[in-house]
Amino acid sequence: MKQYLEVNEWSIVENGFHREHNKISESVFSLGNGRFGQRANFEEDFTGETMLGNYIAGVYYPDKTRVGWWKNGYPEYFAKVLNATNWIGIKIEIEGENFDLEHCEVSNFRRELNMREGFLARSFNAKLKNGKEVKVSTLRFCSIVNDDLGAIRYAITPINFSGTVKFTPYLDGDIKNQDANYDEKFWEQISKETGEGNAYITLKTKKTGFEVCTGMHFHLTQNSIPVNASIQPIEREKFVANEVVVNGKQNEETVLYKYAANVSSLNYSSTDLVSACKKAIAVAVEKGFDQLLKEQADAWVAKWDESDIVIEGDAAAQQGIRFNIFQLNQTYTGEDERLNIGPKGFTGEKYGGSTYWDTEAYCVPFYLATADQRVARNLLLYRYKQLDRAIENAEKLGFKDGAALYPMVTMNGEECHNEWEITFEEIHRNGAIAYAIYDYIRYTGDEAYLAEAGAEVLTGIARFWSQRVNWSEARHKYVMLGVTGPNEYENNVNNNWYTNYIASWCMEYASYALKYVSEHAPDTYNALISKINFTPKEAEKWEHIIDNMYFPEDKELGVFLQQDGYMDKEQILVQDLPASDRPLNQKWSWDRILRSCFIKQADVLQGLFFFEDRFDTETLRRNFDFYEPRTVHESSLSPCVHAILAAKLGDEKRAYEFYLRTSRLDLDDYNNDTEDGCHTTSMAGTWMAVVQGFGGMRVKDGQMYFAPFIPGKWASFSFKVGFRGALLKIKAHKAGVTIQNQSDKAVTLFVYGQEYTVAAGSEVEVKKTEVHA
Amino acid sequence: MKQYLEVNEWSIVENGFHREHNKISESVFSLGNGRFGQRANFEEDFTGETMLGNYIAGVYYPDKTRVGWWKNGYPEYFAKVLNATNWIGIKIEIEGENFDLEHCEVSNFRRELNMREGFLARSFNAKLKNGKEVKVSTLRFCSIVNDDLGAIRYAITPINFSGTVKFTPYLDGDIKNQDANYDEKFWEQISKETGEGNAYITLKTKKTGFEVCTGMHFHLTQNSIPVNASIQPIEREKFVANEVVVNGKQNEETVLYKYAANVSSLNYSSTDLVSACKKAIAVAVEKGFDQLLKEQADAWVAKWDESDIVIEGDAAAQQGIRFNIFQLNQTYTGEDERLNIGPKGFTGEKYGGSTYWDTEAYCVPFYLATADQRVARNLLLYRYKQLDRAIENAEKLGFKDGAALYPMVTMNGEECHNEWEITFEEIHRNGAIAYAIYDYIRYTGDEAYLAEAGAEVLTGIARFWSQRVNWSEARHKYVMLGVTGPNEYENNVNNNWYTNYIASWCMEYASYALKYVSEHAPDTYNALISKINFTPKEAEKWEHIIDNMYFPEDKELGVFLQQDGYMDKEQILVQDLPASDRPLNQKWSWDRILRSCFIKQADVLQGLFFFEDRFDTETLRRNFDFYEPRTVHESSLSPCVHAILAAKLGDEKRAYEFYLRTSRLDLDDYNNDTEDGCHTTSMAGTWMAVVQGFGGMRVKDGQMYFAPFIPGKWASFSFKVGFRGALLKIKAHKAGVTIQNQSDKAVTLFVYGQEYTVAAGSEVEVKKTEVHA
Repeated sequence: MKQYLEVNEWSIVENGFHREHNKISESVFSLGNGRFGQRANFEEDFTGETMLGNYIAGVYYPDKTRVGWWKNGYPEYFAKVLNATNWIGIKIEIEGENFDLEHCEVSNFRRELNMREGFLARSFNAKLKNGKEVKVSTLRFCSIVNDDLGAIRYAITPINFSGTVKFTPYLDGDIKNQDANYDEKFWEQISKETGEGNAYITLKTKKTGFEVCTGMHFHLTQNSIPVNASIQPIEREKFVANEVVVNGKQNEETVLYKYAANVSSLNYSSTDLVSACKKAIAVAVEKGFDQLLKEQADAWVAKWDESDIVIEGDAAAQQGIRFNIFQLNQTYTGEDERLNIGPKGFTGEKYGGSTYWDTEAYCVPFYLATADQRVARNLLLYRYKQLDRAIENAEKLGFKDGAALYPMVTMNGEECHNEWEITFEEIHRNGAIAYAIYDYIRYTGDEAYLAEAGAEVLTGIARFWSQRVNWSEARHKYVMLGVTGPNEYENNVNNNWYTNYIASWCMEYASYALKYVSEHAPDTYNALISKINFTPKEAEKWEHIIDNMYFPEDKELGVFLQQDGYMDKEQILVQDLPASDRPLNQKWSWDRILRSCFIKQADVLQGLFFFEDRFDTETLRRNFDFYEPRTVHESSLSPCVHAILAAKLGDEKRAYEFYLRTSRLDLDDYNNDTEDGCHTTSMAGTWMAVVQGFGGMRVKDGQMYFAPFIPGKWASFSFKVGFRGALLKIKAHKAGVTIQNQSDKAVTLFVYGQEYTVAAGSEVEVKKTEVHA
Repeated sequence: MKQYLEVNEWSIVENGFHREHNKISESVFSLGNGRFGQRANFEEDFTGETMLGNYIAGVYYPDKTRVGWWKNGYPEYFAKVLNATNWIGIKIEIEGENFDLEHCEVSNFRRELNMREGFLARSFNAKLKNGKEVKVSTLRFCSIVNDDLGAIRYAITPINFSGTVKFTPYLDGDIKNQDANYDEKFWEQISKETGEGNAYITLKTKKTGFEVCTGMHFHLTQNSIPVNASIQPIEREKFVANEVVVNGKQNEETVLYKYAANVSSLNYSSTDLVSACKKAIAVAVEKGFDQLLKEQADAWVAKWDESDIVIEGDAAAQQGIRFNIFQLNQTYTGEDERLNIGPKGFTGEKYGGSTYWDTEAYCVPFYLATADQRVARNLLLYRYKQLDRAIENAEKLGFKDGAALYPMVTMNGEECHNEWEITFEEIHRNGAIAYAIYDYIRYTGDEAYLAEAGAEVLTGIARFWSQRVNWSEARHKYVMLGVTGPNEYENNVNNNWYTNYIASWCMEYASYALKYVSEHAPDTYNALISKINFTPKEAEKWEHIIDNMYFPEDKELGVFLQQDGYMDKEQILVQDLPASDRPLNQKWSWDRILRSCFIKQADVLQGLFFFEDRFDTETLRRNFDFYEPRTVHESSLSPCVHAILAAKLGDEKRAYEFYLRTSRLDLDDYNNDTEDGCHTTSMAGTWMAVVQGFGGMRVKDGQMYFAPFIPGKWASFSFKVGFRGALLKIKAHKAGVTIQNQSDKAVTLFVYGQEYTVAAGSEVEVKKTEVHA
């Protein structure tokens, strides 16, 4: 855990240059706009600790799988997000010395990620080896208004001299992924051109053939007056630049404005790529830096207006939750249903692929409540469009007749992951994908989605489960053998309760979906069943499985068993583990972890969280009380679920403790791995912990329920949710809850179990004493 | 399955050049002498399908581990057998054209591995592209008399011309392993020297620092008269050679004799290496080729006299079993307790490391019966010397207080393997290592071994098991969670019957061993318990575990269960599998294999084989009848165990069927993988199938038991076993059994349950009708 960043409600601030943490800062101060994203690398050269990263959504490379021992069924490739052309680079030479903070004395260093307005600023004084001192101040952003564009203002002021400053703004495509299985470069050069003040370079990914054109334009000012200096174009393999030398005067600021655009063949035809890039650059030049920045700030303010959570009385918590919301909004905007949310967003290469079950289980609820319903819908359609691949994926493993197994990790629908115990066995992901459809419809009421896409996806998933179980003669039940549950600290187990439960539920929901479509859209239904060769016999088989599914439980303890044999383990509690043994995944050998009773992340409890309405509170409590003390939360996706359940069970203290574990996970580098990138998808879990946990928000039968409490030392907290055309602001404070309806539509909802109608534009105050025991 | 090799009782013969199978032939025709071994690569250049291989026992390289996903506890390196300096090479140019069979018309090709006398011969006619035709005949061997030496006779006769033949006998150390994780070369050059007619090169392995000096001497004759030609020394990096041009006359044979020596720093000090190599070469030169060859033939004939199995009436079976015995004797001589038996012997790189549990479970019985007891003893001492490493290995996984876990794969005692489900979980290997001590003492009567080394190893192993089990409150039994049994088609299972059983037995035997030492060698005992901090409390704990160990069984079926949950699987039999699904490990995805009921190799049955005296015949039969139909035998180590059990149960037909699966495994390339090397260790299983299966040989209470039957179409079979100073030849024929005592010591033994005394040098004839039902 590190706490070198300043607490500030709207910004992330580094005061003083923490070289040793620079890669952490590069992750935390990352910028993105849903279309591309950039780690907080320096514009000028830096030979210290750094990991370059510019990532373009949807552009990936299928890196040949590397394994120790090949198992049948492994994917040939791991599609991974690519480090793309470096567009921020500005090489600087001061009086003949290359400017590199690694070799400077640095003072007054300040780096700020302004979340409210969506930009990254940096300022410092530096003394070079040649004794020259400069003051530098930079500001950059990835525009969310023109999402091809990035812009940089780079200002440098000589302090103790007047002399030459050589600027070389460049675009460098000769880059590598740190995460390359065979140490190869993934890009080939297609074309380049370099003019005076601008340059363009087009690269193409090997194998996948994505083309990306990156362009730049720059201009210089001194005392706000354009500098007229001669520009020298420079070209190398995969590299274009302009070189310009100016005379810097003592105490006078020279400013370089650099506009860059990244356009890809995902959005433009290959032949139009360069012209599209030029067009984007032209827009930037026309608007100019200040205008672009103003638009950026306005757009971010508007985004906050939809999705902000305000916490009064706890600035660290405030900063934490805003950072999470900021990162989520930077990563995925929902504009493009081909895109998805990588576990690291645009902040690093790790987990190379894009899409995990994180999206469905954690991110969908966030976007449902804080963005237009189209956004969550696009996340659903992403899977719908990959259904054929999921069917192929299942076929590779021996399933048939339209059974669909969605991949554990994917960029294009194909499986990328290659650990058998995950790839082949962590199949519960299929359940989360079905659950997201349910969750979406429950929240939006958009039942039509079933006919459009949902029922087809659900059928493929139900078919998979119906083939994946087998009849056990010994038990006279259906069993599911050889799975890995959400708790990855168990592998290849039999009858994981969560997986069995969600499998059974999927078959139930698929049956419902098909029935719904048959009743409400008979033509679509007929077309569908003919397309997918569905016969009612299948649904009968599903029903037989649902009726005869085996669910392990310990009747004496009154708990569901995580899997067969769980009670054979030595039952030790986390509180009895020596601190020196934690985290287990770094301190214990894998076999020791596997045979211990310790749980990495919510498993049975994940199921109870998803399906809480199907269980009485005492069942929830017994299971929570049993599993919580055995859970080590070594996944960032775990504490939020525990927080929500604890809140539901009235255990406000523990709910708050679990929340604290996630909200500042990256800001405080809690797991000592933020240098690889931020834990983007689990940030949505943090949001859920506030809204569903502390806010008690639920949707049942098309209506909103709230039951807030104030955690810890907070004075109040408030959040906004959109719900079926209404926009609600819920503010919980010591005395009660204020529900403000900021839309033009009356809403009926329940607070602490009691029904209220909030007229358009008005608010309702619920006093805590009125209803809360 | 391929059948391009001729059936011949004493030789392996390839008639006609089967280019497409050349890598298979290179494996099958391999030579070795326990100290080094050489694939059947050609002496002259060959650009066709080939895998070069010269391997020096005990010389290895720790190749940095390559994994897809790192798990805590994985070893850093995989110690692998090295391809060493090519000592056989003789580059030949005929009238200016490089001689390369890939570019010749080849006729009358014949390759013979003469197993009786231990040499490889090759003859053929070849027409080069330049139209020149030559007749070539070569013979080479790795001397088992002077085990540093190899010798080659290379004869070439111009057929349709007289002209220049340039010979370049060389030593090439610039070689690679095919199996290199990061494509690096493992050797560095230390020194070289080249004279006229000789050359020496010393290389050193990176990291491990083994040095190997390879030397050569050659001379030429024409019509048996030494050729006087000028010799040109040649040197390159890691390469030394001599070049000599002779005038070849039509129809006159030019013969090049090449002697080579491989000496390593395992056996000589680094400074003496070159002189030791020169000395070895000098011995060869002094003896001359014919004398060396004669000594080789005599030594092999003597080896056969100890270990041959003669089968009358089935030449293919005869060839098969001799090939197996030949390979085993080529691979391991038992001279050096630092060496062991790699699964591929000296025939390939695969399974890189040297030592698996194959040694203890399969090879020890072979060497016990066919070689001096010192040989099996050395195999035991190999593990004793690695006990400290086994303790370290266990510590890495979290065990303590002297618990020892021997590695799954090792060269020097350190674990090499890196699949968690094998490395960390296939721990039954520890049991086989203990069992081999028991087996050795049972056979030899050498109880003193317990005091010398056995008790200490057994204690380390027992300590491991006692920590590896845990008390299950749910069952009120000790359980063993998260293991992989011998059947690797199940991973991370609970309570594998075999593992639980052998673990319990190990603790029992360790207790016995300590008690034995305390009674028979009290001083040794006191020193030992002080050295290893043993207290009687430990043995009490072991006893408690033994008394309360959980063994899964299905009482209704009367069978032991391979593991918890086995009966939840869909119970299909192998006979119901479509042929197109076999072998499962190539046709099914890994998860499908794991959750099926199909068994790769004997598991419960392996335990019943080891401990048959502890179970009644009906129990053996029920388990055999249950598991055999579920076993796919996709390990070469499986059918022999089934053969022995089938024989014991009187199922002679099936015993013979299982035998057939292994005896010609490599000769017929049954598993389509012989090109990687031969299945050397499973060859010992084939020997067991004959001697323990068809011969019914057992040792109980210090006495030999036999109960032979004649399998299949055989007229008779005979084998020899040494037993406590006696040498017995057992010949089973239609009418009965002849037991010949070829030693000078009377032996009392049991045939078909009846006791006989066979006087020194005499024989006893047991008529089958007398006793056999």
